[in-house]
Amino acid sequence: MSKDKFLGGLLAHGHHEGSCLSRYQSSLYRKTSPYKPSSYLISKLRSYEELHKRCGPYTESYNRTLKQLQLGQTQSISSANSECKYVVWVSFSGLGNKILTIASAFLYAILTNRVLLVDPGKEIHDLFCEPFPDNSWLLPNNFPLKSKFDLYEQKSPDSYGNMLKNNILSTSSESLPSFLYLHLAHDYKDHDKLFFCDQHQKSFSEVPWLIMKTDNYFVPSLFLSPSFEPELIRLFPNKSTVFHHLGRYLFHPTNHVWGLITRYYKAYLEKADERIGIQIRVFEIEAGPHKHVMDQILACTLQQKVLPEVDKQKTFIPPPRTSSTKAVLMTSLSFGYFDNLRTIYWEHPTITGDVIGVYQPSHEEYQQTDKKSHNRKAWAEMYLLSLTDVLVTSAWSTFGYVAQGLGGLKPWILYKPENHTTPNPACGRAKSMEPCFHAPPFYDCKRKTGADTGNLVPHVRHCEDMSWGLTLVDTDSNNDL
Amino acid sequence: MSKDKFLGGLLAHGHHEGSCLSRYQSSLYRKTSPYKPSSYLISKLRSYEELHKRCGPYTESYNRTLKQLQLGQTQSISSANSECKYVVWVSFSGLGNKILTIASAFLYAILTNRVLLVDPGKEIHDLFCEPFPDNSWLLPNNFPLKSKFDLYEQKSPDSYGNMLKNNILSTSSESLPSFLYLHLAHDYKDHDKLFFCDQHQKSFSEVPWLIMKTDNYFVPSLFLSPSFEPELIRLFPNKSTVFHHLGRYLFHPTNHVWGLITRYYKAYLEKADERIGIQIRVFEIEAGPHKHVMDQILACTLQQKVLPEVDKQKTFIPPPRTSSTKAVLMTSLSFGYFDNLRTIYWEHPTITGDVIGVYQPSHEEYQQTDKKSHNRKAWAEMYLLSLTDVLVTSAWSTFGYVAQGLGGLKPWILYKPENHTTPNPACGRAKSMEPCFHAPPFYDCKRKTGADTGNLVPHVRHCEDMSWGLTLVDTDSNNDL
Ligand SMILES: Nc1nc2c(ncn2[C@@H]2O[C@H](COP(=O)(O)OP(=O)(O)O)[C@@H](O)[C@H]2O)c(=O)[nH]1
Ligand SMILES: Nc1nc2c(ncn2[C@@H]2O[C@H](COP(=O)(O)OP(=O)(O)O)[C@@H](O)[C@H]2O)c(=O)[nH]1
Repeated sequence: MSKDKFLGGLLAHGHHEGSCLSRYQSSLYRKTSPYKPSSYLISKLRSYEELHKRCGPYTESYNRTLKQLQLGQTQSISSANSECKYVVWVSFSGLGNKILTIASAFLYAILTNRVLLVDPGKEIHDLFCEPFPDNSWLLPNNFPLKSKFDLYEQKSPDSYGNMLKNNILSTSSESLPSFLYLHLAHDYKDHDKLFFCDQHQKSFSEVPWLIMKTDNYFVPSLFLSPSFEPELIRLFPNKSTVFHHLGRYLFHPTNHVWGLITRYYKAYLEKADERIGIQIRVFEIEAGPHKHVMDQILACTLQQKVLPEVDKQKTFIPPPRTSSTKAVLMTSLSFGYFDNLRTIYWEHPTITGDVIGVYQPSHEEYQQTDKKSHNRKAWAEMYLLSLTDVLVTSAWSTFGYVAQGLGGLKPWILYKPENHTTPNPACGRAKSMEPCFHAPPFYDCKRKTGADTGNLVPHVRHCEDMSWGLTLVDTDSNNDL
Repeated sequence: MSKDKFLGGLLAHGHHEGSCLSRYQSSLYRKTSPYKPSSYLISKLRSYEELHKRCGPYTESYNRTLKQLQLGQTQSISSANSECKYVVWVSFSGLGNKILTIASAFLYAILTNRVLLVDPGKEIHDLFCEPFPDNSWLLPNNFPLKSKFDLYEQKSPDSYGNMLKNNILSTSSESLPSFLYLHLAHDYKDHDKLFFCDQHQKSFSEVPWLIMKTDNYFVPSLFLSPSFEPELIRLFPNKSTVFHHLGRYLFHPTNHVWGLITRYYKAYLEKADERIGIQIRVFEIEAGPHKHVMDQILACTLQQKVLPEVDKQKTFIPPPRTSSTKAVLMTSLSFGYFDNLRTIYWEHPTITGDVIGVYQPSHEEYQQTDKKSHNRKAWAEMYLLSLTDVLVTSAWSTFGYVAQGLGGLKPWILYKPENHTTPNPACGRAKSMEPCFHAPPFYDCKRKTGADTGNLVPHVRHCEDMSWGLTLVDTDSNNDL
């Protein structure tokens, strides 16, 4: 078996192998990552695993902390003496979003010495193996607040933001609530966004239960917090590897999803000399395929030499001896882009003589959230995209972010078309493999004033695919692999 | 280059290679046929080529014979002294039918020392290379009767059958017509069918121009003619190889079709351990996919072990070391069968551990006759099917016959469903790779009475896929490879 079975130390030993084949087999399908996790990150993960073992569901500490929730108030901090505090991630939004927010919540848990518990929703247990060796990460079904999860929203009176706004929250830490709801979804308001300010972090640092609902990869803004930043930089000396490492640490496909991934890989991708992923996500109301999108795919892949040009004049070019085979993996809800691209490379020879096979695992036509097989396929496809050598993604899509992050790939981003028009240029190369935080706060916590948070430090920048988003980039060009 | 570049002597030397790459390259993609052409067939083909050179379009003899057509009557036989006589094949019906009828007409030409000229219709020159080395097989555009071709039909007064019926044809051979129209399409009548009787063959043996319109592979009935039979058996000691040899002699894809074939083969089929062809042709009015057809495909391929079963319980079976990859090439006008089969083998592991890739080059949705790219694809797909190792075809389809004949394959025939019901058994193994003659005469020429022509000689039998059809089978079990 491969030398990198434990992903450079990221993965703990001692997991049962058969119950989650993907965990230790991923290295058979993926090239060894050029990005090494820091030894500090590794040690932090090991101590997190210890914490999770001690505090996870149904442990004594868990049961004790649960009681505080039932009492409603924490005792004074000293008497509470909570050895275990929690971040509860609430199931929300599409699968790509879920993966990014679980990773964000996990990092937040590490930074705050909390235990991450994941609301299983309808699919988490079906899609992902348990990431921690000795206890489940799934929030027990009988968790008292569970019935309220669906109701939590921007206007919920027990959100931290609304409690602040309505001055319900006593700032004295003498009598803290036993839980807080953190509304961090795209529609969150100024008071919710104070979550990212150190003084507020401090104010609820002793609240044992934080319930978090988000559809945003909020990691970049954590790097702007003076209290988190030093630790973050120690954990991730290469700042652009946060999701790359955390994603590969946390998200291991369950055996049936692993079956989808490995069967597809072996049947269609394994034997090619090069694998190219093209992820097409169209945020338009009208059903596709759209001509301006097809034009964009071609403009991007041909101009950037991701795919070879075809010769529409000559009908047959005997391939040169040195020709290579390229497998193009397309993912899209619709069928048309794939059908089109495949037909182009069938009907015409490439000018290079390269042999191009085009593949698309599924065409689900529309986004579904509750069908098991649909979510399995979505996860399998993100993962398959992450196994490619060259990746083209669609702007704004967390589906693509997951693939690029897991794969350690800087994708070509197909810029978002406006007014049904192919953008020019059609795409550009991402500077980083990190996901983009789509709805960051623009607020300077210290000066209590608006600020362009994409302009404060060199490693937190605006995203290439969304001008107001934030993303982590590496600044040291040596690390810029 | 392969040892079998000339297909065991079937192909003449001396063709220009670049203008028709497929002719000498087919042996790179096809296993050497286990069926050797007889040396008598080879010598006959070489002398046919000589004849064609002497009599082909625009030769002196051609021009001279054309004059007779313009005069309308042949002189008395002796004075006519026609060194060149012709069979003109009229473009008619779908592409599979065309290929089979050109082969039939060619064999008839060989048997009667005639020259085959092919009405190019809209696509012949676009699809097929010239088969004969020194002169075109295409009927010149200025052929005098050409404008009548479309009008010829069962009721045409100048058809042989109707002239017989109306006693117009003088049986004295003193003043023969210069041409006869032979209506041999599926709707032909008893008088037309007398074509297959020796005495009638004799009566027009000196007519220089025979114009033939047919959508039937009429070769089996030629074997029932006492005057043709000895020669046919000399030409084809293995009776079931008639189309196999003639097809590979005559039909060489033009360079752009060859591009479609070779690109597809290299991109999707070449690397598999085994190639399986599944040709789905549904003769129903309602657009597919039909559930009973999908059920039939699965019943056939699984019961006959053409494809491995999947395990719907276990979700992941690590493939054994000895597992092989199988590429399944499906062809169909519709997309659904392919999509279904591919998804089954994606969603479930095979019980054998075999890796199954499923491919379909096109899904044209409906039969088109005049679109260039449509016909090119149809031809490319028949040819690709013929390159598989195991073939499953649909009953009644000439598209499938072409594939099996060129490939030298005895297919599994999906029996024709009745009343939207999956037949049981779903399929059966063909005894022969020969096409089926769908509308044979049931007439004993000698005794002038009806007869079951599928029961007269051991090598002409009823077809497995159509009870009233006729097909050639090998009787000597030694020849039954
Ligand atoms: N199987 C599959 N599902 C897709 C694809 N694109 C979108 N979806 C579905 O739509 C959802 C989109 O939500 P999400 O994953 O959050 O990605 P985003 O909306 O692009 O940021 C996915 O989770 C899938 O359920 C695709 O290419 N393949
Ligand atoms: N490309 C493609 N065309 C098909 C297929 N099946 C039928 N067709 C079209 O439909 C025509 C059917 O006529 P023919 O070839 O004579 O076959 P038959 O009707 O099955 O005996 C073909 O020539 C094609 O134009 C298929 O699987 N692929």
